[in-house]
Amino acid sequence: MSTVDKQLETVRETIDEVVPREITISDVTYEGPELVIYTRDPKQFARNGDLVRRLASELRKRISVRPDPDVLTPPSRAEEAIRKAVPDEAEISELDFHADTGEVLIKATKPGVVIGQSGETLRKITQRVGWTPEVVRTPPIESATVQNVRNLLQQERDERRDVLERVGRQIHREPMSDDEYVRITMLGGCREVGRNAFILSTPESRVLIDCGDVPGSSQQPYLEIPEAFGAGANGIDAVVLTHAHLDHSGLVPLLFEYGYDGPIYCTEPTRDLLGLLTLDALDATTGEGHAPPYDSERVRDAIKHTITLEYGDVTDIAPDIKLTLHDAGHALGSAVTHFHIGDGLYNVAFSGDIHYDDTRLFEGATNEFPRVETLVLESTYGGRNDYQTDREDAERKLLELVRETHDRDGTVVVPSPAVGRSQELMLVLEAAMRAGDIPEMPIYLDGMIWEATAVHTTYPEFLREDLRDRIFDEADNPFLADAFEPVDGDADRAALADGEPGIVLAPDGMVTGGPVHSWLEHLAGDADSTLAMLGYQASGTLGRRIRNGWDDLPIGDGGETVSLDMRVESVDGFSGHADRQGLENFVRTMNPSPEKVLCVHGDESATQDLSSALYHDHNLRTFSPKNLETFRFV
Amino acid sequence: MSTVDKQLETVRETIDEVVPREITISDVTYEGPELVIYTRDPKQFARNGDLVRRLASELRKRISVRPDPDVLTPPSRAEEAIRKAVPDEAEISELDFHADTGEVLIKATKPGVVIGQSGETLRKITQRVGWTPEVVRTPPIESATVQNVRNLLQQERDERRDVLERVGRQIHREPMSDDEYVRITMLGGCREVGRNAFILSTPESRVLIDCGDVPGSSQQPYLEIPEAFGAGANGIDAVVLTHAHLDHSGLVPLLFEYGYDGPIYCTEPTRDLLGLLTLDALDATTGEGHAPPYDSERVRDAIKHTITLEYGDVTDIAPDIKLTLHDAGHALGSAVTHFHIGDGLYNVAFSGDIHYDDTRLFEGATNEFPRVETLVLESTYGGRNDYQTDREDAERKLLELVRETHDRDGTVVVPSPAVGRSQELMLVLEAAMRAGDIPEMPIYLDGMIWEATAVHTTYPEFLREDLRDRIFDEADNPFLADAFEPVDGDADRAALADGEPGIVLAPDGMVTGGPVHSWLEHLAGDADSTLAMLGYQASGTLGRRIRNGWDDLPIGDGGETVSLDMRVESVDGFSGHADRQGLENFVRTMNPSPEKVLCVHGDESATQDLSSALYHDHNLRTFSPKNLETFRFV
Ligand SMILES: [Zn+2]
Ligand SMILES: [Zn+2]
Ligand SMILES: [Zn+2]
Ligand SMILES: [Zn+2]
Ligand SMILES: [Zn+2]
Repeated sequence: MSTVDKQLETVRETIDEVVPREITISDVTYEGPELVIYTRDPKQFARNGDLVRRLASELRKRISVRPDPDVLTPPSRAEEAIRKAVPDEAEISELDFHADTGEVLIKATKPGVVIGQSGETLRKITQRVGWTPEVVRTPPIESATVQNVRNLLQQERDERRDVLERVGRQIHREPMSDDEYVRITMLGGCREVGRNAFILSTPESRVLIDCGDVPGSSQQPYLEIPEAFGAGANGIDAVVLTHAHLDHSGLVPLLFEYGYDGPIYCTEPTRDLLGLLTLDALDATTGEGHAPPYDSERVRDAIKHTITLEYGDVTDIAPDIKLTLHDAGHALGSAVTHFHIGDGLYNVAFSGDIHYDDTRLFEGATNEFPRVETLVLESTYGGRNDYQTDREDAERKLLELVRETHDRDGTVVVPSPAVGRSQELMLVLEAAMRAGDIPEMPIYLDGMIWEATAVHTTYPEFLREDLRDRIFDEADNPFLADAFEPVDGDADRAALADGEPGIVLAPDGMVTGGPVHSWLEHLAGDADSTLAMLGYQASGTLGRRIRNGWDDLPIGDGGETVSLDMRVESVDGFSGHADRQGLENFVRTMNPSPEKVLCVHGDESATQDLSSALYHDHNLRTFSPKNLETFRFV
Repeated sequence: MSTVDKQLETVRETIDEVVPREITISDVTYEGPELVIYTRDPKQFARNGDLVRRLASELRKRISVRPDPDVLTPPSRAEEAIRKAVPDEAEISELDFHADTGEVLIKATKPGVVIGQSGETLRKITQRVGWTPEVVRTPPIESATVQNVRNLLQQERDERRDVLERVGRQIHREPMSDDEYVRITMLGGCREVGRNAFILSTPESRVLIDCGDVPGSSQQPYLEIPEAFGAGANGIDAVVLTHAHLDHSGLVPLLFEYGYDGPIYCTEPTRDLLGLLTLDALDATTGEGHAPPYDSERVRDAIKHTITLEYGDVTDIAPDIKLTLHDAGHALGSAVTHFHIGDGLYNVAFSGDIHYDDTRLFEGATNEFPRVETLVLESTYGGRNDYQTDREDAERKLLELVRETHDRDGTVVVPSPAVGRSQELMLVLEAAMRAGDIPEMPIYLDGMIWEATAVHTTYPEFLREDLRDRIFDEADNPFLADAFEPVDGDADRAALADGEPGIVLAPDGMVTGGPVHSWLEHLAGDADSTLAMLGYQASGTLGRRIRNGWDDLPIGDGGETVSLDMRVESVDGFSGHADRQGLENFVRTMNPSPEKVLCVHGDESATQDLSSALYHDHNLRTFSPKNLETFRFV
């Protein structure tokens, strides 16, 4: 008998002691980080209000109770009962019964109403029909991405259950070593922006945090070294993603090409955006005639292996590591990932990308933790002069540019990443137009922007509270404003460029390619139009060169150029990244203060400037690591 | 066809161009770092004086020419011819013919005479009999260790040839990566004295430098982490040993238990002492009822995989790494190991243990190198107060102790490591006795000291020049002085302790156990006798405690003690290690000066003190690494 089976036997004994004799337990297994209890008496179980809470505190585990499939009310009768139990104002749009897990997916416009006071309605449903309800919101804008991900997970339910059971047994295995250490190995993302990847290792476990690519390059993190996948793809216990931007997650599917078969922990929106962004990158790479490092099957693998967590959930991901995600304020579902190692031994937080102040989309990044000894901190704007314009001044400047350009009958082109900054700009422009601060005109949303917006509206609980409320009110949903027009392909762009003045939001943000490049080709010669460049431009990108004054725009692959006659303006202050002040504020007000800070995710000078400033001004032990180095903490 | 085979074909073509047509080449293979050319015409080959040199410079490889076994003169006739070719004064003691390699081993009292002017006699021998002569010295004191090692290598000649051929193909494989980096991973020996082990890695190759244990403990270096053997025992290309002390080589045989099957590079005396010291440690561990981590078969494995180098030889040990050993002045055959990586990319030197000044046994450590960017430096005496007494003062003090104790009819007991310090003390005491500075009395050599001395006399070319000359002159050989008496077991000790006054040299140096402990048990109550403690005492050892004033001597395992009434004196200045001044001098006069220094092999405070002194006083980038950390240089 394996140690996990022995452990499950002990767990089973405890359950038998706590649960009243009239409730039959048919099975107890681990599924991912959860302990799942199958019962033949789900109704009585649900009636015993705090039984689950008592079990969880007794067993010190996350517990999920499911009905034994034999005891479920047949779907047709169950549907009738559910619709009767839930008030009409919830507006149920769909019911989906999964016999293998005993779950019924309830899609409704108002999930809160389905759930009821403290989950009262859900408990009533289980009591009446046996099925465990899971509630999702009917999104105000339908997202194909979200739909595809959910369909995939439903189709592959069997394989997924195998994955979860295997992962569960892995997590709950008996610790083997009596040695103690905590290390971080830098596989990428040091003294550079891109290919973020870090290994957190203990004598017991190894976790990969992020696995990104380099925008516009085929460079990868050092995945092949022994500390990473050199000892076999499954020497890694878990992959944890801070967020879905490709510099953090673009090579996650590649891990499955290498044979990885373990879990990926992230938020639900990060999982869906991972699908959206990697499939889009795949299309782009293939379109340029390059061989992509993986195919779409690997994206599906990645999604099948995802275990989603909510902010604040403390989750066992290895025998000696607990993970908690905290809001990073940078992009939809972005997280500061916090690792508690051993029983009070050590704590490490990886900031991922953060925004310190509130934005129109998100609350600022969380920097309160139970304990953190070492912080791995992004440094995009860590340089000594990387103080950005105030958000209000930035908005004023952008709106001024829009007004001036409109007066000249020109078009404003804003290169913008599809996920995050585009939605932020949509909110700024919609508010200004509604208030009459800029004239009414079309706002063209190119590339993936519209789809990315749909994903945002699917997860309003990840947005700022006031925005969340407006999204639920269809009349007031800013993303549904009339001015927004999705753009469909280059013919569309040519026609629109020659027409009325307007505003264009188009990926990508660094002008390395993508729709924004087509817009520039159409408008390059138009001195009445404006190119408004926002935020960080990585070195080597066309965006950086234009910002530095180049006025030749390359066309096609043949080395041809056209003269860029448009007005080119930089507008700082819209970045999704904390600026130098924000980074310092994040660390200064962090509670508790960390002992050590590793500055990563920035150019060499930015990481060194930030490291030396945090050392001198805030008296912390700081480092600017290099890729391929390993730091030891305990 | 493998890339190595293709490469050998090209090599073969070059050989065919350079070698005259009348000389037939029957085979060309790699054996270890050498390219071996087999010829059916060894006589003509030998006659073409600089053919080998021309080939070596054309091919840029170390070349060895061997006769095809078919063309060798039968041994009996060959022996006659060899004895005729070599002058009688060479005093040949033995001839040994190896048909498989075409080598004949010539043991002689004066190898130089066998070799002749610029190897003239050797060439003559090959011309006449076809066999390739290899000359070894008939040692003035017969060493069982050396004899056993040589017998083993002879018995296992076939397996050894397989090993060499496999290693040769490994070394000369085609480089795979176009990435560039140089890293050092600390597996042990950081902020501690013991379990030295470091991994030097590039995208192409990985080398383990040293693999030691901790004196008196079962602690091992972190061999199981992915960077070491986690990716398989043969993820390591080569093991390189600085010297045979167990804190550097005690766990080398364990590597073969783990399945390692590659080469071990070191000097010839290090190989033999490795055999002597590990087998002795094995006996001691077994004697104490502990399970040793490997058995004697693994020691034989280690010796079979050894490739010995001379100081100054530049040797390819991996596609992108060249190794050179330099005299470290610390122990017989001890080496500073210098690694040249890539084609001028980077240079790293590991000091191993060093002694900066000349001693009676050795010249001081070499610190001239073609290039060195990073130095990994021992710090045993790196602490701010670790300045040791002058060698001359130390000798005066020791001799004074000997005289005083002799006057009281007592015995002086000197705990002393068998290899190195004991021979140094023998030279001091022999010289003093010969000069009449101390009275004539027996000098007892306990444990392995006599055998270790025999190994020293086998390799006089590794000793100081004046000592070398005296060893060859039997009448003047200091190690053959009448006063020296090997001790045989505890009955012998009891009798000797009760008898005449004398001097005892007994392992081990830190009084953790071994013969010295028996002597103390016999003499503990004798207030007329003296315990003279020399040099470094590691923390946690009995030696450290006695030095700190403890006067209870533990007896047996039961927790019993006897009172230590002997006079206890410390005599600094006899260490085989450079003191703080020596370490600073080594770095200060190093040519060229290194850019970075990693201070290892010392207590935490010693490594930190030395690191900070070298930074402040010599303006170097310095570090005091921790075990399990990885540094990147390029
Ligand atoms: Zn990001
Ligand atoms: Zn799988
Ligand atoms: Zn990023
Ligand atoms: Zn040593
Ligand atoms: Zn040592």
